[in-house]
Amino acid sequence: MKAPPEAPPPLPAALAALTGQGVAAIDTPAAVIDLDAMERNLARMAAFARTHGVRLRPHAKMHKSAFLARLQMQAGAVGVCVQKTSEAEALAAAGVTDIYISNEVIDPARLQRVAALAQRLQAAGGRLAMAVDSLEGIVRLAAAVESHTTSGQALLDVFVEIDVGQGRCGVPPGEAAVALAQAIAAQPVLRFAGLQAYHGRAQHQRGVAERRDAIARAAQAVQDTRARIEAAGVEVPLVTGAGTGTFALETASGVWGELQAGSYLFMDADYAANAHDPAQPAFEHALFVKSQVISVNAAHAVCDAGHKSHAIDSGLPRVHGLPGQPPLTFANGGDEHGILHPPDGSALPGLGDTVWLIPGHCDPTVNLHDHLIGVRGGLEHGTVERIIRVDARGALT
Amino acid sequence: MKAPPEAPPPLPAALAALTGQGVAAIDTPAAVIDLDAMERNLARMAAFARTHGVRLRPHAKMHKSAFLARLQMQAGAVGVCVQKTSEAEALAAAGVTDIYISNEVIDPARLQRVAALAQRLQAAGGRLAMAVDSLEGIVRLAAAVESHTTSGQALLDVFVEIDVGQGRCGVPPGEAAVALAQAIAAQPVLRFAGLQAYHGRAQHQRGVAERRDAIARAAQAVQDTRARIEAAGVEVPLVTGAGTGTFALETASGVWGELQAGSYLFMDADYAANAHDPAQPAFEHALFVKSQVISVNAAHAVCDAGHKSHAIDSGLPRVHGLPGQPPLTFANGGDEHGILHPPDGSALPGLGDTVWLIPGHCDPTVNLHDHLIGVRGGLEHGTVERIIRVDARGALT
Repeated sequence: MKAPPEAPPPLPAALAALTGQGVAAIDTPAAVIDLDAMERNLARMAAFARTHGVRLRPHAKMHKSAFLARLQMQAGAVGVCVQKTSEAEALAAAGVTDIYISNEVIDPARLQRVAALAQRLQAAGGRLAMAVDSLEGIVRLAAAVESHTTSGQALLDVFVEIDVGQGRCGVPPGEAAVALAQAIAAQPVLRFAGLQAYHGRAQHQRGVAERRDAIARAAQAVQDTRARIEAAGVEVPLVTGAGTGTFALETASGVWGELQAGSYLFMDADYAANAHDPAQPAFEHALFVKSQVISVNAAHAVCDAGHKSHAIDSGLPRVHGLPGQPPLTFANGGDEHGILHPPDGSALPGLGDTVWLIPGHCDPTVNLHDHLIGVRGGLEHGTVERIIRVDARGALT
Repeated sequence: MKAPPEAPPPLPAALAALTGQGVAAIDTPAAVIDLDAMERNLARMAAFARTHGVRLRPHAKMHKSAFLARLQMQAGAVGVCVQKTSEAEALAAAGVTDIYISNEVIDPARLQRVAALAQRLQAAGGRLAMAVDSLEGIVRLAAAVESHTTSGQALLDVFVEIDVGQGRCGVPPGEAAVALAQAIAAQPVLRFAGLQAYHGRAQHQRGVAERRDAIARAAQAVQDTRARIEAAGVEVPLVTGAGTGTFALETASGVWGELQAGSYLFMDADYAANAHDPAQPAFEHALFVKSQVISVNAAHAVCDAGHKSHAIDSGLPRVHGLPGQPPLTFANGGDEHGILHPPDGSALPGLGDTVWLIPGHCDPTVNLHDHLIGVRGGLEHGTVERIIRVDARGALT
C-alpha cells in the first residue's frame, strides 16, 4: 500500500504560466535546471551503481524535491537520505517512502515525530532509518518508537555513525561503536542496520591522490570497526556513506555497500574544481541561476543575483559563458547584486542582458528557492518543461 | 481608502500552537526574536529620527515582514524601502502602502508589474517609488507607467541613484545625474523625487573616524550633485540613504532628509563589531537562532544549526552565552551543523542543551526562515507571544 501523497499547494500563476515558454520568459534571478544535463547525470550515476553492484541512496538534502527523489528511485536508487526530520516529513508527505535521516536526533518531541513517521512509512510499505552516535540517543529513540508500535517488531533501521575523518558527529571508530551497536541490537523496536561512515572533508580535497589516501584511511577504520562489532556477535548488514567527490573510492574499497552522493545530479562550481578521478563518471553542471544586468557603468556591470539567490559558503558563483560571450568574472555585490567584470579590453554586457551563474554550492543554493525551473533544449534556446517544487525548502528542524 | 490586505495562508499547526508556550517548546533551529529588545531598538531609532527632524524609511529587505513594517510606521516611519519588485508586491499584498524600491528595474515585463503596483498603491492612498541609474531605465519605466495611467498625472516617484562610494549601482555624482534628473522631469507620468545616495561600504568600516571620513566625502558628492541639478532648473525634493552603521553621520551632515537603516531593528554580529559612534543610539541583539546540541564527543559538541539556518556572508554566528554558561565558540560545520568549542578546561555542553546564536548578518539569515518566533520575557524564561510571517521570504525578482 502506498501512502497517497498530500496535494501540494497550487503553483503561483506566473510560474504555472511559464511551462511551454522559452527561457527568455523566466524572470530573474531564478534557479534553472538544464533537464538534459541533469538526466545525463542521473543516468551516469545509476549506471555506475548498477555496474559496480552497489546501492545508491542519493542525498535529498541537496534537491529537497519529491519529484527528483522519485526520478532517482525510478533510475534504480533504493531510497534517499535526508539530514532533518522535517525534510523526511516533507518528502514523505509528497509520496517518498524509503528515507534515511543520516543525522542525529536527540530532542524527545522530535523523536516522537520520527517514530510517527516510521510508523506511517512502514504502513505504506516503505521504511525509515536514522543515525545515532550516543547511548542517550538510542535510549530516547527506543522510548519514542515503543510508544508508536504495538507489534513489538522493529519499526526503524538504525545506523551507528562513526567519524572517519569529517570531524563532526559520530563516535570514534572501534570500541565505542561496538557498544552502540550492541545497545541498538538489545532494543526490540530498533533494527541495527550498520554503519554510517561519511568523510565529508575528503569530498572537497582537490587532488585525486589526497582523496584516495583519505578514503583508504576511512576504509581501514570502517573495516576494523565492523570486525569488532561482528566479533561481539552483532551482524553489520551495511556500511553507508560516500559523496560526489569520492564515491568511486568507497565503491572500489569493497567496504561500503551504499552510496549517498547527492550533488552529482546538479554539480556545482566547488565539485567541478576537484581534479577528476577517471574512475568516476564525469558530471555536467545542471543547476544555474539565471540573472540579468540591471546597471552598467564605466567600470563594471551589475546583475540582480546576490547572496539571497545563491549560497557563497563554497565561494562566489562562476559566470557560465554561452558561445560568443566574453568570459565575465563575478564579484561580491551583497545580498541582491553581483558585480561583473569583463576581461581586459572586452565590452561590458548591456542593460537587460542575461547572465547565467554556476553556484559554488548546490545544496544551500537550492534551499533559497521555492521552485526550480526545468528547461529542455539548452539555456540559449530551450523551453520551460516543468516547474520542480522544492518540497523541503526551509525544512530545518 | 486602504487596500484590504490579502488573507495570508494559515500558519502551520505546530507553529500556531507555540503561541503562549515557553521558549523550551521552540523546535530547533529556529529564528527567534527577543521582542523586548526589538521594541527598545524600534523606539530608540524612532526617537532619533524624531529628535533630529529626519524622515525614517527603514529597509524592509532586512525583515521582509508586513507586520514589522507596520510596527515601524506606527512608530513614525514614513514607509519602507525594499530591493525587489516582488518584495514590494508581497508587502503591498499584506497591507503596506508606502514602498520605495531602492534599486534599478530594467526588465520590461517587471516594469509592467512596477507600474501596476504603483497604480494599486495610489488607489489605496499610498505611494510607490523606484530608483534609476540609466536613461534607458527611465524610458522603459515611463513607457510601462504610461500604459497604466489614464490621468496623465505622475504615478511614481523616481530617485536618481548616485554612487557615493559603494561601487555598485548608480551614476557618478555630478553631470551624469543632472541628465537623468532632467529626463525624469520631462516625463509627465514620473515625478523626480530626489537622489538615492547609499554608501554601503561605509556601514561596515570598523572605526568611527573611517566612517566619518567616508560619509563626509559622500556628503560633498551629494551636495555638488544637488547644486548642479538645481542649477539646471530641477528641484531636488529629497536625498535618501544611510544605514545602521552611519545614519548619525548622514543626519548630522544636513544633506540627507531620509534614513534607510534596517538592521537596527534586529542587529547582528557584524554591526556589533563596529566601534560604537556615541552620536547613535546603542542597539541590542534581537535576532537569535535557537539551536540544540545533537552530538558530543571528546573534542567538541555539535549543534543542529548550519548554513541553512543562518547566513555566513559576514562571518559565522557568535554564541550568545546566557548567564552562568561558559562562552562557546562556533566553528563551521557545514549546511546543517555547527561545531562548538568551550574555553580551555571548561566542560562541553550536554546532549540536548540549547545554544543561542547571534547571526553574522541579519538580512540573509531572515531570508532563510518562513517565520520568526517572537518571544516576550527573555530567552531564558520567556514565552512565545507571536509568530511573525516573513511575507517576502524568497521574493527574489
